Amino acid sequence: MQLEEVLKGVLADVADHIGEGKVANYIPALAKIDPKKFGMAVVTVDRDVHVLGDAEEAFSIQSISKVFTLTLALGRVGEGLWKRVGREPSGTPFNSIVQLEHEHGIPRNPFINAGAIVVADTLLSGHQPRETLGEILSFMRYLTDDDSIIIDSEVARSEQQTGFRNAALANYMHAFSNIHNPVEKTLGVYFHQCALSMNCVQLAKAGLFLANRGLLTSGGRSVVSSERARRINALMLTCGHYDASGDFAFRVGLPGKSGVGGGILAIAPGKAAIAVWSPGLNANGNSATGTKALESLARRTGWSIFG
Amino acid sequence: MQLEEVLKGVLADVADHIGEGKVANYIPALAKIDPKKFGMAVVTVDRDVHVLGDAEEAFSIQSISKVFTLTLALGRVGEGLWKRVGREPSGTPFNSIVQLEHEHGIPRNPFINAGAIVVADTLLSGHQPRETLGEILSFMRYLTDDDSIIIDSEVARSEQQTGFRNAALANYMHAFSNIHNPVEKTLGVYFHQCALSMNCVQLAKAGLFLANRGLLTSGGRSVVSSERARRINALMLTCGHYDASGDFAFRVGLPGKSGVGGGILAIAPGKAAIAVWSPGLNANGNSATGTKALESLARRTGWSIFG
Amino acid sequence: MQLEEVLKGVLADVADHIGEGKVANYIPALAKIDPKKFGMAVVTVDRDVHVLGDAEEAFSIQSISKVFTLTLALGRVGEGLWKRVGREPSGTPFNSIVQLEHEHGIPRNPFINAGAIVVADTLLSGHQPRETLGEILSFMRYLTDDDSIIIDSEVARSEQQTGFRNAALANYMHAFSNIHNPVEKTLGVYFHQCALSMNCVQLAKAGLFLANRGLLTSGGRSVVSSERARRINALMLTCGHYDASGDFAFRVGLPGKSGVGGGILAIAPGKAAIAVWSPGLNANGNSATGTKALESLARRTGWSIFG
Amino acid sequence: MQLEEVLKGVLADVADHIGEGKVANYIPALAKIDPKKFGMAVVTVDRDVHVLGDAEEAFSIQSISKVFTLTLALGRVGEGLWKRVGREPSGTPFNSIVQLEHEHGIPRNPFINAGAIVVADTLLSGHQPRETLGEILSFMRYLTDDDSIIIDSEVARSEQQTGFRNAALANYMHAFSNIHNPVEKTLGVYFHQCALSMNCVQLAKAGLFLANRGLLTSGGRSVVSSERARRINALMLTCGHYDASGDFAFRVGLPGKSGVGGGILAIAPGKAAIAVWSPGLNANGNSATGTKALESLARRTGWSIFG
Repeated sequence: MQLEEVLKGVLADVADHIGEGKVANYIPALAKIDPKKFGMAVVTVDRDVHVLGDAEEAFSIQSISKVFTLTLALGRVGEGLWKRVGREPSGTPFNSIVQLEHEHGIPRNPFINAGAIVVADTLLSGHQPRETLGEILSFMRYLTDDDSIIIDSEVARSEQQTGFRNAALANYMHAFSNIHNPVEKTLGVYFHQCALSMNCVQLAKAGLFLANRGLLTSGGRSVVSSERARRINALMLTCGHYDASGDFAFRVGLPGKSGVGGGILAIAPGKAAIAVWSPGLNANGNSATGTKALESLARRTGWSIFG
Repeated sequence: MQLEEVLKGVLADVADHIGEGKVANYIPALAKIDPKKFGMAVVTVDRDVHVLGDAEEAFSIQSISKVFTLTLALGRVGEGLWKRVGREPSGTPFNSIVQLEHEHGIPRNPFINAGAIVVADTLLSGHQPRETLGEILSFMRYLTDDDSIIIDSEVARSEQQTGFRNAALANYMHAFSNIHNPVEKTLGVYFHQCALSMNCVQLAKAGLFLANRGLLTSGGRSVVSSERARRINALMLTCGHYDASGDFAFRVGLPGKSGVGGGILAIAPGKAAIAVWSPGLNANGNSATGTKALESLARRTGWSIFG
Repeated sequence: MQLEEVLKGVLADVADHIGEGKVANYIPALAKIDPKKFGMAVVTVDRDVHVLGDAEEAFSIQSISKVFTLTLALGRVGEGLWKRVGREPSGTPFNSIVQLEHEHGIPRNPFINAGAIVVADTLLSGHQPRETLGEILSFMRYLTDDDSIIIDSEVARSEQQTGFRNAALANYMHAFSNIHNPVEKTLGVYFHQCALSMNCVQLAKAGLFLANRGLLTSGGRSVVSSERARRINALMLTCGHYDASGDFAFRVGLPGKSGVGGGILAIAPGKAAIAVWSPGLNANGNSATGTKALESLARRTGWSIFG
Repeated sequence: MQLEEVLKGVLADVADHIGEGKVANYIPALAKIDPKKFGMAVVTVDRDVHVLGDAEEAFSIQSISKVFTLTLALGRVGEGLWKRVGREPSGTPFNSIVQLEHEHGIPRNPFINAGAIVVADTLLSGHQPRETLGEILSFMRYLTDDDSIIIDSEVARSEQQTGFRNAALANYMHAFSNIHNPVEKTLGVYFHQCALSMNCVQLAKAGLFLANRGLLTSGGRSVVSSERARRINALMLTCGHYDASGDFAFRVGLPGKSGVGGGILAIAPGKAAIAVWSPGLNANGNSATGTKALESLARRTGWSIFG
């Protein structure tokens, strides 16, 4: 299989769909993105890089950051994390608060907003937000071997000014003693991690350890154990696309995590990490054309984990 | 890898746990089962059979039947089925009716009770329950090449007498025009399919086409297309264990479907189909020791689909 | 105060609104009613009768029957009834099943469908539906001193054929052991009680004991104790209009019970019982013009219980 | 009827129950209250005062304040208030957030916390919290003709430090644009109004206009129109005791509003305003002995609004 050929095929499949969907517009910094952008990067387990379109233009990774903060938090507190956050699909939108009331402040999984806020709270513990954010940034730079990655402070500030629903989630969990730091500090970490600005190549490189049994490269340094890599992949598969996770598994068949900025990170275990970016979102809040591109890629490569 | 060795290891891992969990007792036929039963069968894609313990003793497969009726229904009505049933994890117990009210009578997926009742209704369409049940039974016998498989009519009758919650689900969906046949006929099919009596070897053989890209055997006859096999596996992964599907994916890493009789069918794509039986259930209604055995098997074989 | 003058004023207030709202159309017998019908009857505690419009034309009293079956059931089982049904407003539509799941099969109050089905089940206990319906009919004839009151069997039959949602409720509660008789018998009673056919004069007479401290007439025979009459009034006030009970209390200020046939029975304690009929329903399923007429009557008479 | 005799009877009825229930302990200032306190004041429409026990000892009126802020808000914005808050019983606990998600940030009524926070936001509009609190305090002093009423700043501060759930509600509603001022300012007003410190006599006097068709005294100055007084009473009846409002109406039969400090204000239209205080709460968060005392009073006086 020639990946270059595959990517050409993917592009042919999605060409007519580029620009579809609705760009997130709850903050100006996201609303102004050109809906016609489309990029894709496939980084194989031996770190070969294959790209398509705007693969080297940075975008706001938003919720995709939750994969990396989860990895850090598991490294910090281990499996004890699961006392504070579940690992089941939620059956509700990403920012629902109903489930929290029914389950006493324990979010269903680390990829809905409430769960990611608990994860951020875990990372913050005993530090200042600035330190924690430094740690997250260092981790992203280490995974990608690329020191140019930054947090877009304009985006972070806008999120903070409009994030009343996330503030509600954090306060609510604090009432159940499931946020341990001052709410505004925990939210500060959360809003800034979502504002990480990366391009498809960087993002695929950052996720490669998940395709690679936890190693940075085949035979390279270990980021997490192979068991932990598998488990994070399992969580991405069952919970990575909010209330459309089942549909993504059905159509694409790869663990993945989407962000409201239009990016998706997908993992083909033993094969490659893939990042795609197309700002227009479908009704479930996931990149419309990005999902189509991954569907095409999975079909053309046979990388589905389901046979 | 020697599967015989692997199975010995699995047995060693679960030996101290056999008998754990709580046997389903809502009908006498299930309540009287010896909780110490434990069987496992691994059937590889070239149809080699490896067994452990009570692998040839029949048990009530219950909800595992939903995998096979779904397969039949997709063959009958194709992807149009998804207009009447979703494919997202539910975030609620197997027999919850709350979701149906919020989503206008469309069950979340074909593996919760409501969804399986819609699937049964699809199969029934234009026939008598007896004919539809004949078709289901023929399908199971065809998949396993074993004409001894039967439906336990005592179990079916008991289900019918105590199945008020399922009757509520069916009537409720009828009110939304999502049940097209008389409620009692649709329920008749549903209660009888759940009463299929099979042993681990039969069950693993029956599921083998899902491990085998839709083929009965490698290079053999096609049951479904490879794409459909992948998609059914995806549904089993995200929805196969009710509200513990995320946990099963996290711990075992294989598509699977459990039944309240203590059985679980798991699929290792490209490798094997596995059936396990141990009647004691955990808090989520899935076989306690069965789940442990699959966790051990997946670890020892490296068959996890997550890398 | 001259009631004749008051009623003229009421008619003037609602004249332009007669025909407003949407006539219930889920069964033919209700759908064919002329939306321009409007009748009102005020029966004072000394049994003076004052009428307006179509006050002597019979209509299907539907859920208003729940007031009378509750009265009978309290007579039968006393305050023990409250173990099987609550007495709190539901905050949900009349036929919601969500609350039943959250509260283990105990309906919130006797005026939502689920609660009324439990009440019917209580009345049925140990009898045939025919006997229980005979008892209900006798009670209505006794209260009104009018043997012409009947149950419209065409309406009852239609309800039975379309009542899947009520069948869901009954089966669901049976699963929680809160229905003690065969579901179809209990539903038979329920569907027939709803098909009681009465006119405004009969209905107001039937409700008079609630305005009269439990007595048939001032100084007359006792139907229930004064305390029980007060309590039934309290339930009508808080729960009598489903999820618009608060609005009815706010606007009209009298205990009342509405039916989907367009009737409303209202009680002015110490003053009168009032029945109004206008088939068009508002968004909450209560008679649109009937509510307006009661609002006008309450304002003109000063009969509000709130001062 | 001699009210002095009635009150003696009430005391006899509750004497054995004084000290029952569980004192609120979420803030130290409430937790330290002696559970044996019991006071009652009945102020008749001609402003005669009758007392029992600790009727002149101040306590934290907490949610009872919602009656008075609602009155002020209706004076400020009129019936337009009902665009931002409903007037239906909630069917959920006082601090539930579930309903807000289902109904897009519009609280069900002004007496659950979310609704009262919207009311506080209405009062704040265009002012500083200090000014709005001054206005509330002036209103209470005007109603009671008693300048000694204060806001207990220690209680207010404690509420603010532990009020994460209320902060969640406010942020959540802000996300739906149903809070117009900065969240912390609106909450500042809300936490301080709840910290009003009053005794039974003051509280009954403050509520008297609701018993008196909106007038301060019979024939005296108007606080609100008679229609508005009726409507506030209706809201108290249907929504004044959270998810036990139906039970209170059933047992007591008077409009009432309870507070977590153990106070209840009840209105007997045309007769009297009654305040009772007993710190121990029942399972629904309402004063256990206070409810009993009102039940006894209503029975002994025949003041029930239900006949």
